[in-house]
Amino acid sequence: MKRIYIQEVVTRDGFQAESAFVPTEQKIALINRLSRAGYAKIEVTSFTSPKAIPMLADAEAVMQGIDRIPGVEYTVLIPNLKGAERALSVGVDEFNLVMSVSEAHNQANLKMSREDSFKGLSSVIDLAHANNTAVNISLSTSFGCPMSGIVSLAELMHWVDRFAARGVRGITVCDTTGMANPAQVHSICEAVQTKYPKLQWTLHFHNTRGMGLANALAAVNSGIVRFDSSLGGLGGCPYAPGATGNICTEELVHMFDLMGFNTNMQIDALLDCSKDLQSLIGRTLPSQLLMAGKVDQLHVAPCQP
Amino acid sequence: MKRIYIQEVVTRDGFQAESAFVPTEQKIALINRLSRAGYAKIEVTSFTSPKAIPMLADAEAVMQGIDRIPGVEYTVLIPNLKGAERALSVGVDEFNLVMSVSEAHNQANLKMSREDSFKGLSSVIDLAHANNTAVNISLSTSFGCPMSGIVSLAELMHWVDRFAARGVRGITVCDTTGMANPAQVHSICEAVQTKYPKLQWTLHFHNTRGMGLANALAAVNSGIVRFDSSLGGLGGCPYAPGATGNICTEELVHMFDLMGFNTNMQIDALLDCSKDLQSLIGRTLPSQLLMAGKVDQLHVAPCQP
Repeated sequence: MKRIYIQEVVTRDGFQAESAFVPTEQKIALINRLSRAGYAKIEVTSFTSPKAIPMLADAEAVMQGIDRIPGVEYTVLIPNLKGAERALSVGVDEFNLVMSVSEAHNQANLKMSREDSFKGLSSVIDLAHANNTAVNISLSTSFGCPMSGIVSLAELMHWVDRFAARGVRGITVCDTTGMANPAQVHSICEAVQTKYPKLQWTLHFHNTRGMGLANALAAVNSGIVRFDSSLGGLGGCPYAPGATGNICTEELVHMFDLMGFNTNMQIDALLDCSKDLQSLIGRTLPSQLLMAGKVDQLHVAPCQP
Repeated sequence: MKRIYIQEVVTRDGFQAESAFVPTEQKIALINRLSRAGYAKIEVTSFTSPKAIPMLADAEAVMQGIDRIPGVEYTVLIPNLKGAERALSVGVDEFNLVMSVSEAHNQANLKMSREDSFKGLSSVIDLAHANNTAVNISLSTSFGCPMSGIVSLAELMHWVDRFAARGVRGITVCDTTGMANPAQVHSICEAVQTKYPKLQWTLHFHNTRGMGLANALAAVNSGIVRFDSSLGGLGGCPYAPGATGNICTEELVHMFDLMGFNTNMQIDALLDCSKDLQSLIGRTLPSQLLMAGKVDQLHVAPCQP
């Protein structure tokens, strides 16, 4: 049975898109439940400026409040040296850095050039290595940019090469706004793994145009075993108001489990967490599985008129 | 470029799940627009009892009212001999017959045993052949039944064998309530095509649990080139109120086009039809693509706070 590693991003990527603050205790309670559901990794929070993302202003308190279950890696998003220092002060298993492959998206999202991002992140990598902390780089808009269009493999590989040379442990290839298609996923996954077979590769898909799970299937068929996903599909797309965001964890796990892969996940616990998350944020989540129930959940015949 | 054949089911499978009657003229207008969008086949309506499905009581009027564009096949759902005679009176390109592979679903949906269904449909096949009309059989719940669970390949193959022996032109393997997974799709597509390479095979997926396009990808990777889908994803699932139904045509076409396949479809015309369908039925459709726009539709940077 092929082992698949599921990495939860709901309390960072998901919450980041929410306007109403989720109390620190609720965040901790959710992460503690998720920690016991079988994840390989949980992206707990982001050590970004509290002014930029007030939702995650309690990053230290959350990291210090959660139970750290052996076998689960607790990663955090680190935008710069200041964030890295804050993270080191509470202890994290991994720094997850981020920049965009597309210049336009990096400017729009991070307000600086890619070269300036790389320079800043290089200092963060040095600090991480000096503190024996693993580093992952999430490359946003690896497949396409909502402003400048399709991203070429050569452009992606340029940044992969530069971060590989800086000694990162892993690279997450992110389809930030749901522009990837399965053929493109296949060719990119083949290319990056062939060139860097020892790096820890993660694929990060969004379901913005309905292709999320098809892309995950294409990735797993290309040898990828690590996936980011968000509980209930929480998250959005700033370029398409109302559109969905990250692929939904329980749908990804449900599909892979049915296919006979070993995700190590407890799907019923996930569905319970997702249901409670709906109550927490006060609206219906995009999770189709939450609505329809698992395949093995049998029904009686519906009433006919 | 691999040729993919798209078969629209919105005015039959989609409308059938709607409660408010869509006026005959509106149905005709929609089909006339769809006819010019590049479909291989359109399932126009169903010649079922007007009492059972009042929405499709105007089957003759719709068939007689539409423009029949050369190159597009106009198929209709035929439940029994009476329906077949009605369809012959107005002329159709194909009879699409239906029964369930699962006994429980056949009883729930058609109120008879599979043996009785087969017997009745055999008479319809004889009538079709006597009138030089092509026959397709749609095998519902080919992957799983919401009441009795997963359907075995052997059980599916039993009904495939019996209809193949009756001389049907095509068989549609239907995942009626969205229970299929990509591994199962792959093994079933391989098995049926290997045994009957000359039959016209169609795959019919629902997105009830989010796996719709992943299953379509698995099917196309297994050599399938014909797909049913519903404009805007219109349709539902009687076993999961509020859940989505058929896979969404524009999302399927968008994905296959991006992958470099030749769907022959005019995606912009499709999106226009889908948008207008939302107005027609008065609510938001499940189409993610309608919300987010195509991948090649570029954006300006979103306003940042």
